[in-house]
Amino acid sequence: MNSRAWIVDHASRGKYWPDCLRLETRALPPLTDGSVRLRTVYLSLDPTNRNWLKLDPAQTYVPLAVGDVMLGQVLSVVEESRSPALSPGDVVAGLLGWETQSVVPATRVTKLDCSVPLQTHLTIFSHIGRAAAMGLLEVGKLNQSDTVVISAAAGATGLIAAQLALARGAARVVGIAGGDAKCRMLEEDVGLHGAIDYKSEDVAVALARECPAGVDLFFDNVGGAVLDAVLANMAMGARIVICGAISQYDLASPELAYGCRNLPLIMFRRARMEGFVVPQFEARYGEFDAILREHYHKGQIKSRAQIVQGLENAPAALELLLTGHNDGKLMVQVSDPPHV
Amino acid sequence: MNSRAWIVDHASRGKYWPDCLRLETRALPPLTDGSVRLRTVYLSLDPTNRNWLKLDPAQTYVPLAVGDVMLGQVLSVVEESRSPALSPGDVVAGLLGWETQSVVPATRVTKLDCSVPLQTHLTIFSHIGRAAAMGLLEVGKLNQSDTVVISAAAGATGLIAAQLALARGAARVVGIAGGDAKCRMLEEDVGLHGAIDYKSEDVAVALARECPAGVDLFFDNVGGAVLDAVLANMAMGARIVICGAISQYDLASPELAYGCRNLPLIMFRRARMEGFVVPQFEARYGEFDAILREHYHKGQIKSRAQIVQGLENAPAALELLLTGHNDGKLMVQVSDPPHV
Repeated sequence: MNSRAWIVDHASRGKYWPDCLRLETRALPPLTDGSVRLRTVYLSLDPTNRNWLKLDPAQTYVPLAVGDVMLGQVLSVVEESRSPALSPGDVVAGLLGWETQSVVPATRVTKLDCSVPLQTHLTIFSHIGRAAAMGLLEVGKLNQSDTVVISAAAGATGLIAAQLALARGAARVVGIAGGDAKCRMLEEDVGLHGAIDYKSEDVAVALARECPAGVDLFFDNVGGAVLDAVLANMAMGARIVICGAISQYDLASPELAYGCRNLPLIMFRRARMEGFVVPQFEARYGEFDAILREHYHKGQIKSRAQIVQGLENAPAALELLLTGHNDGKLMVQVSDPPHV
Repeated sequence: MNSRAWIVDHASRGKYWPDCLRLETRALPPLTDGSVRLRTVYLSLDPTNRNWLKLDPAQTYVPLAVGDVMLGQVLSVVEESRSPALSPGDVVAGLLGWETQSVVPATRVTKLDCSVPLQTHLTIFSHIGRAAAMGLLEVGKLNQSDTVVISAAAGATGLIAAQLALARGAARVVGIAGGDAKCRMLEEDVGLHGAIDYKSEDVAVALARECPAGVDLFFDNVGGAVLDAVLANMAMGARIVICGAISQYDLASPELAYGCRNLPLIMFRRARMEGFVVPQFEARYGEFDAILREHYHKGQIKSRAQIVQGLENAPAALELLLTGHNDGKLMVQVSDPPHV
């Protein structure tokens, strides 16, 4: 039995080009005891995928090498099982290949709760939602008195973080996003207290207006000039949570890296800047999932997805994220979702 | 009765010039109940003094205004007292004016322990020593397995931090300083495991050599390019303690501020960068003082002072700090120390 798979052709340093991946037809390995054969339904496309493709161990927590099948968060249906833990028809998720089918040990996937819409397992109830919850609550120590700012607030993680900050009762939640449409969505649909369009406004000036008492908690997904503008507007004791730095992931050359000038303010404002990656808190996923479930069932967190059709379009679709042209959580539909 | 005092003439933005202060003879206020008249012995000169003179509330925790007597950490002798807490001849310290004599409420000063050399009250047993102890132990959470790096390691705070890191058993302690003489002193006299001369070496390359397993704890006094080089060499879970940023205090124009390019690594390395100022931990001074006393009495922390003679030379001497031309803790002797 065959699978079509995206294989890492070469490292993608400098500007991302989809040709760092090549599509191949490969024979699936035989199904052995404890393994399952999966049909891929959705691939999650995430900014971090772009970093993995640099094949630079200093900038990733997922080691990929030339010749490997490209990896990502994947939602699949079990087609055949030699594990007592899973049966055909079960819906599962895991860090799996960008391919139409896969054979993996059953322990590499998690069986999903089908009482919630399938796509929420790649948004709220996924690494995305967990990043929002652990970043805001654990790393950021959200207080109800906080003025919270979220960058890429219309992006997959930012949108959940923004809704979660509101749901947890933050005093003021302000989103930063690119373009008027995203900003209107954040204010009108999501109900944020303010939104800043980094493409048309001076972010430092807009922050001073939107956060007159300063920023207490910044959930950052973009880095670069936006981060620098927030540093200039920190309140005393501010917490800067570094969840991502997408503006710095895809530079044509290292000299184009943004130089952040406001770091001395970290001292004057007694501030803390802290980075994290989702797997760091693996032992506590249950705790964060419970919080996300609570607010989802109260209707306080909704997900927003953009679906690209066809495995063959995955490498090109990754560019939408890097240029900010996605609308909510970007995923690729590889085959028909099961009726659950 | 008169005092000679340095008065703030105007804000010093851009490059520091000593003419932002002017020397005046002023009548001392009358001694009222609860007050003391003090004769100034030593003024402590600290990088933070330069920031206070910007008269910018965003960059200081000591509010000064045009016409005020310049402030600093001062060691004085009580000449006359109308407080039951202090008697003539007592030696005290506090945040006091740059002047030959002063009249202040007795509550503004602390009576000093004269069983240790007087100058140690402006080094080990002062805001300097406290900054080293709280930065390393409280903010930096020093572990014995840590590779610790300290910038401006031959400076007042850095030298105490370096010795304290060794005394607390850090696995490896590396200092960064300017010039071969300072580096030799750090390796040969202080016993650091390594020293890096930022004036003659590429700091990032030297750090990779001196800290092959990466930097676990960085105690930073300088900011700018040195901080950026350390970020590039962080171990997983690194802690970056921002005690100062002297390279960025005295720029001719704001555009000269150094742009730090390696911030995205804060995420990849799950690192924490945190700033602090000494008064933040005022309630816990006793705890840090006890630790410093213990290591001082074991002979593990020595102080090194450079003394400039005469109040009239204080504003010019502050420049020595900003250019790195001081040798250990810089202070101004205003009058003869008492025989204690």
